Amino acid sequence: MNYQKIINDIYKIVSKENNSGSLASYIPELSKIDAEKFGICLTTTDSQEFHIGDSCEKFSIQSIAKIFSLIMAYRHIGDVIWERVGVEPSGTSFNSLVQLESDKGIPRNPFINSGALVICDILISHLTNPKEDFLKFMNTISNNTAINFSKKTVHSEKSVGYRNIALCNYIKSYGNIENEPKIVLDLYFNICSIKMNCKELAKACLFLANNGKTLSIQEKILNSSQTKRINAIMQTCGFYDESGEFSFKVGLPGKSGVGGGIIAIHPNKYSIAVWSPKLNAKGNSYRGMKFLELLTTRLQSSIF
Amino acid sequence: MNYQKIINDIYKIVSKENNSGSLASYIPELSKIDAEKFGICLTTTDSQEFHIGDSCEKFSIQSIAKIFSLIMAYRHIGDVIWERVGVEPSGTSFNSLVQLESDKGIPRNPFINSGALVICDILISHLTNPKEDFLKFMNTISNNTAINFSKKTVHSEKSVGYRNIALCNYIKSYGNIENEPKIVLDLYFNICSIKMNCKELAKACLFLANNGKTLSIQEKILNSSQTKRINAIMQTCGFYDESGEFSFKVGLPGKSGVGGGIIAIHPNKYSIAVWSPKLNAKGNSYRGMKFLELLTTRLQSSIF
Amino acid sequence: MNYQKIINDIYKIVSKENNSGSLASYIPELSKIDAEKFGICLTTTDSQEFHIGDSCEKFSIQSIAKIFSLIMAYRHIGDVIWERVGVEPSGTSFNSLVQLESDKGIPRNPFINSGALVICDILISHLTNPKEDFLKFMNTISNNTAINFSKKTVHSEKSVGYRNIALCNYIKSYGNIENEPKIVLDLYFNICSIKMNCKELAKACLFLANNGKTLSIQEKILNSSQTKRINAIMQTCGFYDESGEFSFKVGLPGKSGVGGGIIAIHPNKYSIAVWSPKLNAKGNSYRGMKFLELLTTRLQSSIF
Amino acid sequence: MNYQKIINDIYKIVSKENNSGSLASYIPELSKIDAEKFGICLTTTDSQEFHIGDSCEKFSIQSIAKIFSLIMAYRHIGDVIWERVGVEPSGTSFNSLVQLESDKGIPRNPFINSGALVICDILISHLTNPKEDFLKFMNTISNNTAINFSKKTVHSEKSVGYRNIALCNYIKSYGNIENEPKIVLDLYFNICSIKMNCKELAKACLFLANNGKTLSIQEKILNSSQTKRINAIMQTCGFYDESGEFSFKVGLPGKSGVGGGIIAIHPNKYSIAVWSPKLNAKGNSYRGMKFLELLTTRLQSSIF
Repeated sequence: MNYQKIINDIYKIVSKENNSGSLASYIPELSKIDAEKFGICLTTTDSQEFHIGDSCEKFSIQSIAKIFSLIMAYRHIGDVIWERVGVEPSGTSFNSLVQLESDKGIPRNPFINSGALVICDILISHLTNPKEDFLKFMNTISNNTAINFSKKTVHSEKSVGYRNIALCNYIKSYGNIENEPKIVLDLYFNICSIKMNCKELAKACLFLANNGKTLSIQEKILNSSQTKRINAIMQTCGFYDESGEFSFKVGLPGKSGVGGGIIAIHPNKYSIAVWSPKLNAKGNSYRGMKFLELLTTRLQSSIF
Repeated sequence: MNYQKIINDIYKIVSKENNSGSLASYIPELSKIDAEKFGICLTTTDSQEFHIGDSCEKFSIQSIAKIFSLIMAYRHIGDVIWERVGVEPSGTSFNSLVQLESDKGIPRNPFINSGALVICDILISHLTNPKEDFLKFMNTISNNTAINFSKKTVHSEKSVGYRNIALCNYIKSYGNIENEPKIVLDLYFNICSIKMNCKELAKACLFLANNGKTLSIQEKILNSSQTKRINAIMQTCGFYDESGEFSFKVGLPGKSGVGGGIIAIHPNKYSIAVWSPKLNAKGNSYRGMKFLELLTTRLQSSIF
Repeated sequence: MNYQKIINDIYKIVSKENNSGSLASYIPELSKIDAEKFGICLTTTDSQEFHIGDSCEKFSIQSIAKIFSLIMAYRHIGDVIWERVGVEPSGTSFNSLVQLESDKGIPRNPFINSGALVICDILISHLTNPKEDFLKFMNTISNNTAINFSKKTVHSEKSVGYRNIALCNYIKSYGNIENEPKIVLDLYFNICSIKMNCKELAKACLFLANNGKTLSIQEKILNSSQTKRINAIMQTCGFYDESGEFSFKVGLPGKSGVGGGIIAIHPNKYSIAVWSPKLNAKGNSYRGMKFLELLTTRLQSSIF
Repeated sequence: MNYQKIINDIYKIVSKENNSGSLASYIPELSKIDAEKFGICLTTTDSQEFHIGDSCEKFSIQSIAKIFSLIMAYRHIGDVIWERVGVEPSGTSFNSLVQLESDKGIPRNPFINSGALVICDILISHLTNPKEDFLKFMNTISNNTAINFSKKTVHSEKSVGYRNIALCNYIKSYGNIENEPKIVLDLYFNICSIKMNCKELAKACLFLANNGKTLSIQEKILNSSQTKRINAIMQTCGFYDESGEFSFKVGLPGKSGVGGGIIAIHPNKYSIAVWSPKLNAKGNSYRGMKFLELLTTRLQSSIF
């Protein structure tokens, strides 16, 4: 398979098209990004790497980081994690608070904000130094010590994070947050602030395409069954209320972030990171969605 | 792969366990079924068939039929179908009516009742004899002339179908039903009433595992891309508000019905039909879910 | 109190102001009305009558008729009526269907459509000829044989009444409709179709200001306690999700209809009917609200 | 009118009946109260006072205090207050968060928690020392310097107030809170913590029955029109999702608190305070509701 040629071709096609959507506006850090940035990196389970564009420039991965915190927590406490958070798609963003009410404080899945907050709470309860441990974990899965939090982004988020504060306290009122909301939110904002480039991101997620093993040091991050389950959750819940659309058009498990990044996994084949900051109405990278749709169409290969 | 042995083993295990759940009670026709019925049939894309238990006994496939009506409509009008119905999971059953309100009469996906009603409306607008044409279509995909509507079940459904009448009129009030609700509902109840056994059902769905082509006569029902998309919708929306759970535990696209049937697809490998009438709290076959979870675990093979 | 002068003054003021809002557009019968019609009639408990403008021209009273059907049913079955329908404001129109779901088919109050449908169901269960009996009742309370259904309006409503059909069947699915939805809807549409002019309407409602007794023949329609309760429901639920606003600005129990009519009651003093067809965003007569607000301000007399 | 005899009679009747319901359990301060406490005080606009039972024992007035903060804010900024908070009943407690979402951060009315938080925010923006000023205002309307905050209750509330913290931050995310949520919540918890006995409470609210003037010093707290409007809001929104029921059964404007207190106003006649700590399922004093229902029935006098 000539991945490089295919990637180049699609990159050219998408670059020529109109770049729709708009930058995330709610935090200053994200609204100042160059909207024309566009990078791709695809890494295969047989150790090849193909990239193009701004693939070496770091960006704020935002909600993509929720994969990593989920996996850390899953490693630590195993399947009891699912007593604190569900695995169902949430329907619409509109419903998140209503659902918390009818579900008595159990978030629908670990990728909506409420669910990611509960995951942070779990990490705090089980780790001595959650922030350091998180960076160590990122180092382990990506064999890369250059991944770090962005203090500026954390500060930016905190200054406008009233809705997340509301969510965290609301879940606390149902007893599904054990620690002080302040501490939980601090970890949450830090995790969402990390910056990575497409190459780092594709590499960090490759174990999800490799039955749970990192390629570099063959360390088992998750067992095969756990890996499949993480992929399954990404498939049904990874793109907010556009998860069905992504599944329909791209046909791969994946996760997006409001920084314009998307990671997608083809089990046993490859992981791919795409970055383009302009977001569609549902908050997912416009060009990122487009690129991946064309990719799986051209490759005639999705999980379906 | 010794499918027969594996199926036999799991069948034995599940049969020994407590048979939880309860029969669909809302229509007399379904509440009178023998709760201990349990049948399996797995058909592969290389023409093998493996079955056990009550695999030759017909049962009411109910919502599984929504796959067939969707595919018929998709063949007829192509991608404009998605202007009338979405591809997103609906979150919870609880929300169905609220969502119709906020989504202005566009059902979330073609597998919830509202969506299936819109699909029936499309069929009526495009076919001369929708009921006959539907049976012909069933014949085409399954090479089987023995599939028919159950007048008794239709009658039974109609006598208690107030909620579906409500849904259909509600969508009509938004202009997303073109024909008279009465006619749309008649087709809907008929399609849901068809009876098939596991062998027939597995065979009828095999083209979804075979890139859209039937095995018997190699007829192209859908093209490859359309087939992937139908599978993707089954993956995210096939099990009501337990779709995430099914994806998480079984890892295959599938669809359930309140008659206790489940069909699941492993693209390029097999289709499998399971039937056991007792339903869990979410309305999906208790033993059916169990069987499929053990199957993909044992085979170490899901789409993820 | 010189009611006539006050009414004349306010009529002049309101007539000079811009006539905001728009005609009810959903049924042809209502959208064809002359938007500048404006009539008032105030009748006192000491038998005086004051009127101005188009007070003798009949209009479609629409939801105002829900008062009369409620009172008929209340007379027939007494306080058990409140087991079938509540007395709480519904919050927003938006919620009506959700509330029916969470309230298991018990409508919030008898003035929202769902509640009025349940009331019609009660009438059908208890009366031999519900339509004739309803007209007889209207004759009794208003000493007027000229009140009748409008077949044209009924026909017009039925042709677009999908949402009401949906509501009725939805409640039926919860078991809170005893009769066939078709029959219930027929009575509902007929009752809402009656036409009255301001003089007739003010007179028909005067017993609500007179402790339940009609003035003409001193017939006890309701006892004193029942009368207060009907007034209380009008106060909290009479203007959809603008009930609080009406209470706040006008301070009288009342009921509006999409035909542009409003009836308001000052217990022990008067009843007043206002008609002006243009509706504000919440579906209540723009000039009607305005007139009554100025009236109670000028009279320095509301129930508060 | 022999108010004392009537009060005594009803007090006896209600005392003999079973004392249903349960104490507010969510804060320790309220759950430790003697459940059998029962006090009444009725004060008339012609300076008479009638009381019985535990009418001189202070209790936590909780949400009743929302009347006082509302009136303070109304005095300060006048009718622009209604741009920040509505006057409509909220339907059900269940909906509060959903409504905030659909209403874009504008609470339905000033008596639900979200609305009272916005009122506190207004006070903070307009007063130099909001807490002191509030106590001064209480002194003015009740000619009583003995009214104070309860530090213990504030502390108790703060330790479990996650839901209120959530609400305040949620409204802040919509821009309808100007000050820091922490400061707004502190004022809110303090205002809700004040303790008064029935005599003090009835006296403090008497101006609402007296066209806005205090009896003691004839000071105009609100003008006549403003007073009517406050009474109107109490009528439609004073008892959470039991406001319709209270209006229906008692027929007076009023406001309840989870401490078991209720204040009710008969315009131009009297104000009455009732205290009995056991709450019904909707969070309103069981005996308080009962007492007032019997009172207006016996007096044959409500506002309707």
